[in-house]
Amino acid sequence: MKFELAKGVRDFGPDEQIIRQELMQKLRAIFERYGFSPMETPIIERLDTLTAKFGAGEGTDVMKEIFRLTDQGERNLGLKFDQTVPLARYISLNPTIKLPFKRYIIDRSFRDGPIRLGRYREFYQCDIDTVGCGKMTAEAEIIELTIDAFKTLDFDITLEINNRKLLFGLMYLAGIAPEQTNKAAIAIDKLKKIGSGGVIKEMTDGGIAEEKAKQFVSYLANTGTTEDIFAKLTEIAQGDEACTNALDELKKVFAFISDEAKEKVKLDLTLARGLNYYTGTIFEAFLNYPKGTPEEKMICSSVAGGGRYDDMIGQYVGRGQYPAIGFSFGLAPILDAMKLSGFEVKKTTAQVLIIAIHEEENAKSFARILRFAGINTMTDLNGKSISKNLDYAEKYKIPYAIFIGEEEAKKNKGKLRDLTTGKEELLSTEEIIKKLTR
Amino acid sequence: MKFELAKGVRDFGPDEQIIRQELMQKLRAIFERYGFSPMETPIIERLDTLTAKFGAGEGTDVMKEIFRLTDQGERNLGLKFDQTVPLARYISLNPTIKLPFKRYIIDRSFRDGPIRLGRYREFYQCDIDTVGCGKMTAEAEIIELTIDAFKTLDFDITLEINNRKLLFGLMYLAGIAPEQTNKAAIAIDKLKKIGSGGVIKEMTDGGIAEEKAKQFVSYLANTGTTEDIFAKLTEIAQGDEACTNALDELKKVFAFISDEAKEKVKLDLTLARGLNYYTGTIFEAFLNYPKGTPEEKMICSSVAGGGRYDDMIGQYVGRGQYPAIGFSFGLAPILDAMKLSGFEVKKTTAQVLIIAIHEEENAKSFARILRFAGINTMTDLNGKSISKNLDYAEKYKIPYAIFIGEEEAKKNKGKLRDLTTGKEELLSTEEIIKKLTR
Repeated sequence: MKFELAKGVRDFGPDEQIIRQELMQKLRAIFERYGFSPMETPIIERLDTLTAKFGAGEGTDVMKEIFRLTDQGERNLGLKFDQTVPLARYISLNPTIKLPFKRYIIDRSFRDGPIRLGRYREFYQCDIDTVGCGKMTAEAEIIELTIDAFKTLDFDITLEINNRKLLFGLMYLAGIAPEQTNKAAIAIDKLKKIGSGGVIKEMTDGGIAEEKAKQFVSYLANTGTTEDIFAKLTEIAQGDEACTNALDELKKVFAFISDEAKEKVKLDLTLARGLNYYTGTIFEAFLNYPKGTPEEKMICSSVAGGGRYDDMIGQYVGRGQYPAIGFSFGLAPILDAMKLSGFEVKKTTAQVLIIAIHEEENAKSFARILRFAGINTMTDLNGKSISKNLDYAEKYKIPYAIFIGEEEAKKNKGKLRDLTTGKEELLSTEEIIKKLTR
Repeated sequence: MKFELAKGVRDFGPDEQIIRQELMQKLRAIFERYGFSPMETPIIERLDTLTAKFGAGEGTDVMKEIFRLTDQGERNLGLKFDQTVPLARYISLNPTIKLPFKRYIIDRSFRDGPIRLGRYREFYQCDIDTVGCGKMTAEAEIIELTIDAFKTLDFDITLEINNRKLLFGLMYLAGIAPEQTNKAAIAIDKLKKIGSGGVIKEMTDGGIAEEKAKQFVSYLANTGTTEDIFAKLTEIAQGDEACTNALDELKKVFAFISDEAKEKVKLDLTLARGLNYYTGTIFEAFLNYPKGTPEEKMICSSVAGGGRYDDMIGQYVGRGQYPAIGFSFGLAPILDAMKLSGFEVKKTTAQVLIIAIHEEENAKSFARILRFAGINTMTDLNGKSISKNLDYAEKYKIPYAIFIGEEEAKKNKGKLRDLTTGKEELLSTEEIIKKLTR
């Protein structure tokens, strides 16, 4: 009998997990620097929480992909499919929480969906959310944070931004009927891939009159600077309150961010995003790689994204206003990019292996002293030969070995070998600690 | 409609999660200092992995408590109930892994069992495992690590130790039949609670002859020093190979640990531990509180435990020897103890709230500079009044506020208020950074 992994899930051995933890730690530090505090919600939620029509949304893929289970008491349960619905449920159980409530969560989500490259049934999301702020200052903060985060990770990004109220307002102005707006949103999202001809065809195939489709696409033609686009849209939106307000929101976002951020943020009127609960600003971040490089081909999906959802939490609470905005960093695509850019993959967190040669006590005391000083220290548990120990250190890429034989023990020293260069030095524990804590 | 938590699971708001993350970070650092590297296995496993008779074990509580589910393809799956069975499955998929393999994992386990104080259906385990070392050096290392960990956390512990081969060997010597040994082990585990009379009664009620029960209990009478007990047992075990070997293992463990560790480790022959897969040394750690204190009453369960399981991994792999030992720190009881001992509970990770008074630009630039220097900085997103901002800072116990009005802006300074003492100082960003990074 062979024991396999379940379909669509993964093990993360030390080589993967070390780099994942480093990334999570970096994200945590940045989230906290912007005033977001950690929280955690359970994996298991009641099914009615997950399937609420303002949660997964009726008839959506997400709804179909919920892992369902029951407990001993035959209660209907499910595994959380995102981090936002459980946040809404948390607020509904803690409705007097002081707002704005700014939290982050780094946790798994589960979706029983089709598996393809980079899509798993169990995956991590690193989310920040600001609950209780309807002003565009919240958007500006998240943009600054995102740009700071990718700068820290040494990636150049473009953060695409749009506003769903504007998108749907422009559909209205183009004469597209409300029941056809979702179709139009799905089509327009593909503009970069299939061109305006393709988009118009998809819309007319879906029953939208050709002149309306053409009109709509003409509104979104994305040429010139942000100011040019704003000027053009201001004209189009003239007299329409919804469009004008949405446009004002976008203008405020740009007004609130730093000049450095403005260089990275790109207004993209075709951006739509899948989740139904978004109500205003939406974002998506992409890594900038030179055209035609292998990196460009591999990391083509977005590495982060999110948006404003002003209605959902209030619907879970049942009363009151809880304007909110969330943003999610994708652990897997960022890790892929880190590996592609040559980020060092470690096989162990151990810094040194102590190898005792016909000697025990000094090796033990060395280990104790190094560990006390915060050095990640391995010892030879199985009492193997020197060559087997070196083979072990090689396999796990442990950077240093310390040999302690009778000679070394007498001098109360150890022979430190740099396993990359082969260089050896006879050193005291203090000297070794100094060297290894650099 | 009200949205509830599922039964037996919990939310961790920032106040809980901040302290949990601090504890996890401390444990991680200690695990790595002893040469354990991080890894992660999925929550979802195939049901056949979890229910293997050398995994959960037939007819056990754990087996009954597995959360079961299926995927789209009607595959039978379950949520992991511990971190050890998935490790065995991982090794079986990576059988050429270089041994000893030392890993740690901090992750959730799930059990659909009865709920009582401190028992949840979704709970965290912090596990270390050494795979591929049958020598008692592995035990010694784990003991040193455990004592180091609790010292770092400022707790005084007793680490109880026993050996299951010895326990079952003594049952054999007392004449207890193999089919009655599990009953005897469950009874003897209660010796401290119900006394030797109670244990003998439970054993005889279970069909064990009274003189055998008495004989067995007399073997375990735990008086005198460790040396006294070893001397007594050496005599009892004389001529019985299994008992003598088991006793030798225990003696070696004591020989391999430091004098400091010896003071904390207590041989307790009645320790049995529930899981069937243990084969040799078993441990359980308890916090030492003065008798009769509230702490003693509240934290009476063990805070960590584990043992040697030399057979299980080999059974999953299907061939070869994979002696292994694991040890698990219970996040929840340790956190309870930290809170009882007055560990500071924070409501936010933010260190400072910037409050702009009829001013915008300098406040923004202050936030940017402080964040760049690594200070966790909140700004007033909603543009509220000073008193509302101070109320907010009070609710979340943010330690400092910085006021920036026109006067301060002119001087390029901010008024830093210590919200605990009320003391105010007019300071530059450099001075504030110096003060807050202390």
